[in-house]
Amino acid sequence: MPVYRAPQDDVLFLIRDVLEWDRLGHLPRFRDAPLDVAGAVLGEAGRIATEVLLPLNQSGDREGCRRAEDGSVTAPKGFREAYATYRDGGWAGLAADPAFGGQGLPQVLWTATSEFMASANVAFSLYPVLSTGAVEAIAAHGTPEQKAVYLPKLVEGRWTGTMNLTEPHCGTDLGLLRTKAVPAGDGSYRISGQKIFISAGEHDLSDNIVHLVLARIEGAPAGVKGISMFVVPKFLPDASGEPGARNALSCGALERKMGIHGNATCVMNYDGATGWLIGEADKGLRAMFTMMNGARLCVGLQGLAIGEIAYQNAAAYARERLQGRALSGAKAPEKPADPIIVHPDVRRMLMTIRAFNEAGRALSLLTALKVDLAHVGEDAAERQAAEDWVGLLTPVVKGVLTDRGFENAVTAQQVFGGHGYIEEWGVEQFVRDARIAQIYEGTNGVQALDLVGRKLALNGGRAVQAFFAEVGAFCEANRQSDALNPTTKALKKGLNDLQQATLWLMGNAVAKPDNAGAAASDYMHLFGLVAFGYMWGRMIKAATERLAADEAGDRAFLDTKLATGRFFMERLLPETGLRLARISAGADSTMALAAEAF
Amino acid sequence: MPVYRAPQDDVLFLIRDVLEWDRLGHLPRFRDAPLDVAGAVLGEAGRIATEVLLPLNQSGDREGCRRAEDGSVTAPKGFREAYATYRDGGWAGLAADPAFGGQGLPQVLWTATSEFMASANVAFSLYPVLSTGAVEAIAAHGTPEQKAVYLPKLVEGRWTGTMNLTEPHCGTDLGLLRTKAVPAGDGSYRISGQKIFISAGEHDLSDNIVHLVLARIEGAPAGVKGISMFVVPKFLPDASGEPGARNALSCGALERKMGIHGNATCVMNYDGATGWLIGEADKGLRAMFTMMNGARLCVGLQGLAIGEIAYQNAAAYARERLQGRALSGAKAPEKPADPIIVHPDVRRMLMTIRAFNEAGRALSLLTALKVDLAHVGEDAAERQAAEDWVGLLTPVVKGVLTDRGFENAVTAQQVFGGHGYIEEWGVEQFVRDARIAQIYEGTNGVQALDLVGRKLALNGGRAVQAFFAEVGAFCEANRQSDALNPTTKALKKGLNDLQQATLWLMGNAVAKPDNAGAAASDYMHLFGLVAFGYMWGRMIKAATERLAADEAGDRAFLDTKLATGRFFMERLLPETGLRLARISAGADSTMALAAEAF
Repeated sequence: MPVYRAPQDDVLFLIRDVLEWDRLGHLPRFRDAPLDVAGAVLGEAGRIATEVLLPLNQSGDREGCRRAEDGSVTAPKGFREAYATYRDGGWAGLAADPAFGGQGLPQVLWTATSEFMASANVAFSLYPVLSTGAVEAIAAHGTPEQKAVYLPKLVEGRWTGTMNLTEPHCGTDLGLLRTKAVPAGDGSYRISGQKIFISAGEHDLSDNIVHLVLARIEGAPAGVKGISMFVVPKFLPDASGEPGARNALSCGALERKMGIHGNATCVMNYDGATGWLIGEADKGLRAMFTMMNGARLCVGLQGLAIGEIAYQNAAAYARERLQGRALSGAKAPEKPADPIIVHPDVRRMLMTIRAFNEAGRALSLLTALKVDLAHVGEDAAERQAAEDWVGLLTPVVKGVLTDRGFENAVTAQQVFGGHGYIEEWGVEQFVRDARIAQIYEGTNGVQALDLVGRKLALNGGRAVQAFFAEVGAFCEANRQSDALNPTTKALKKGLNDLQQATLWLMGNAVAKPDNAGAAASDYMHLFGLVAFGYMWGRMIKAATERLAADEAGDRAFLDTKLATGRFFMERLLPETGLRLARISAGADSTMALAAEAF
Repeated sequence: MPVYRAPQDDVLFLIRDVLEWDRLGHLPRFRDAPLDVAGAVLGEAGRIATEVLLPLNQSGDREGCRRAEDGSVTAPKGFREAYATYRDGGWAGLAADPAFGGQGLPQVLWTATSEFMASANVAFSLYPVLSTGAVEAIAAHGTPEQKAVYLPKLVEGRWTGTMNLTEPHCGTDLGLLRTKAVPAGDGSYRISGQKIFISAGEHDLSDNIVHLVLARIEGAPAGVKGISMFVVPKFLPDASGEPGARNALSCGALERKMGIHGNATCVMNYDGATGWLIGEADKGLRAMFTMMNGARLCVGLQGLAIGEIAYQNAAAYARERLQGRALSGAKAPEKPADPIIVHPDVRRMLMTIRAFNEAGRALSLLTALKVDLAHVGEDAAERQAAEDWVGLLTPVVKGVLTDRGFENAVTAQQVFGGHGYIEEWGVEQFVRDARIAQIYEGTNGVQALDLVGRKLALNGGRAVQAFFAEVGAFCEANRQSDALNPTTKALKKGLNDLQQATLWLMGNAVAKPDNAGAAASDYMHLFGLVAFGYMWGRMIKAATERLAADEAGDRAFLDTKLATGRFFMERLLPETGLRLARISAGADSTMALAAEAF
């Protein structure tokens, strides 16, 4: 069975030394989370991940979910009890508004604890995670009554939430959706239609399931301008707000899929179900995006999370498996062979994974901090800048962390040789589970288009210019340090590639939008590489300063950080040049063929 | 259910215009295979692939193999009948020596037909494919009696073969193997031990199974110098050469694995089984390598084959799925949305897959031609050069085609969006099936080390220098053609990167072997990119010449070829620069960490 140990040390290093936690203590959310409290929260989350969730990961994959004749769905054995532990520990409301029963702690901590739990059991983590989005959407767009009915239950975790967007003929292009809403005359609507790929659409973990459903009100305009969002609970809340009558909706089938077997991915049928409008009629997409942005950051985190547990198991295997001798001479002559961790190609794989993971974690936590600052930052300028960062980096976190997370899982599997292909070892499950994160909540191609087609130009490019300025200033401020100069030099080169690519897009995409489309995916990865490089720059700086201060009790940890950062700069960051070359090749050869030539 | 149409047009273009089939007609093997005969063979193989094997691919994956209490194994429904079709069609002996009942046709045709069949059903294709290796090993190292007993049956396909190398504690490092052979006094040996991961180790498709088993004769030296190869048939041949008494070997279990469920991957127990030495005692590795090199080329082909069927299904989906509008304005205004093939990012994915597939096919067929020429080339020099090519390119074909094949399957899955994750569509199976090819017959890391650590330096670098000279001469000979100049320019740049990397290795790997180990994987891919670039160069030249000759009835095919080649040169070949940068970074950061820091 796979092993897992939550990377609490790494998170503590990041929040203390990179995010400079101590400077944040005067802000709401952070006031109640000094470093020792944060450490305790992380410790407990790590314990639950390892002791409660991890033991159910492989069994959940094998057993899967079961749907009975009546449409009820049972999660794999043990999931119900594990969810009770999660709920009773208050994890669902860790970062939620105290007005609705939340603990009001920083998003940073929620993000870190979510990573741990997704590492241990990503299929399980999908049951509660969408509730967070439902909370955000209802909090932002719901009526006071709706908030009162739904938020405390969702925040407590007694109820869970879902997002219902996709239909058989429409995924990315929501303008095509057909699910109908007919006013019932009493302020409610009757919702009819079929939704597919609904994560946690039906299950036995919570007392009620709150479906947020996109539908078209009778007579609404065609396309995306006629879409509204409805709250459609499985059980209609009664007068006391408790689950009452069963609503006319049901799980028609469970999808048979490549991975995340422990999560119930449902076909949901709405047969005149009762629902209530959330926010304004025909403005459903805006409301849905409120929950989708948070969900996208979460999905990015899943990529990282699976990359991390895959890494840990590959490293453990590489330290134990004896095979061959080191090229430079036997390292364990007393044994029949050396552990395979002596082989440079095995190290190449492990170093690549960890260099991406650690940068991805830093970027996730920094972005979570920006989410916090967008709400509780000291002044409007800080809040605005933080919001700009979140908007710009959300597609990068989603797209790049899930692409790298999948690659990392595949690379970790390779370390196992033939054993990696066998179910028993559990690493092939990581590959299957990681794959979905590149697809759902908007495929990574859609993320790339969001970045290139929308986020770059927003507010005259304010967000991207601020990002360039911040990374550039970091390079400038640290280039004269002997310890940091190789890092800033490499980072500056990467930043130049990114700026050149941005200029190329500005010059070539307006007249010919295909140039943007053909460049989008490479641009997103180029952006991700530079963002990761910047994270490594800040981590290297922080580690160097701690080592210099000679107070470091964690010298081995810090030395490892520096070596991993150097590997990133030398081996991984140079990919920016390739991405720039592809982008500036333009769309011509990509678009040359007639459709029937494919 | 997935669709598949064998790429016969592409193969015919390659053999006619790139391999210049007509010039080969005077050679043995080719004499009986003029273009029309080759076309007929390809047509029939394509028909069997699509009509017989494809319909069993998804059902075989779902059903898997079953092992009964007595150790007998049943392949999925329909496999037995399909195998009878394969056997009766003479496909097993297509390229085998007529002296043993083979048809003696070129390896090129065997390679092309094998690709088709592996595309349609890779799990099925593994049953017969290892017989080929067994034939080669017995033909090269067996006694006349062994040849007479085993070869006709294997060539006819009535019996199938296996390779038994891996044991629970030893895969790559065969020196550790423990399976024992004790002389029985009658010329035979008693074989005892356990082998794992044995493809087609037990099944119900053939009358007998011929296991080639690596074992250590009692008293033999430790390590790889004490390994011998034995033929250990499931049924001992009786006096008339027919299957007689059951041998003391059995399938102890079927491995539960990520993919290729339709193939029986067995734990094989040898309990004093009767076997006979093949070749010399303690020289088993040499004999095994005879079959392993052929097997490695076959595995490379599997990567290509799955990449091809994945491509075809992604392209079909992209032409049909309606979602969104083209960035440059609606392309199908009469429909509710445009087919997603209008989107540049979808085309980027499809073009990337096909550009790798078509180059991979060219490289596979050219290498197969070299296998032919190594046997039937006109003079010793041509045979030697061909053998050098095969030795040098075998790890590249295996490692690069399987890495790209897996990536291609993943990319094809991405085209399907959420549907790609659902079993029903069949594309997730391609991903699971493709994954093993990167692992078995020597992981791709082992291939890379074979290339860098062995093949480069062999005979004073004769093979690699010949490769550089050939690619360089191609660039030089064609650089003044307007049609070819952009291609030769890009190829020359890639070749320079490869030559620089080679020089770097020569200068840095002798004193510090870790520099070779840390560079190996990137070097293999750099080599693959240049080999693919060279294939594209030759394809572009051939297509250009046919178009200029104005005899082309297949103008659309040739135009597509040119556009795809241009995409490769602009978008994919530039990866050589990144690979060179990684290689010349050296091993320091890769090797910096202590083992316990991982």
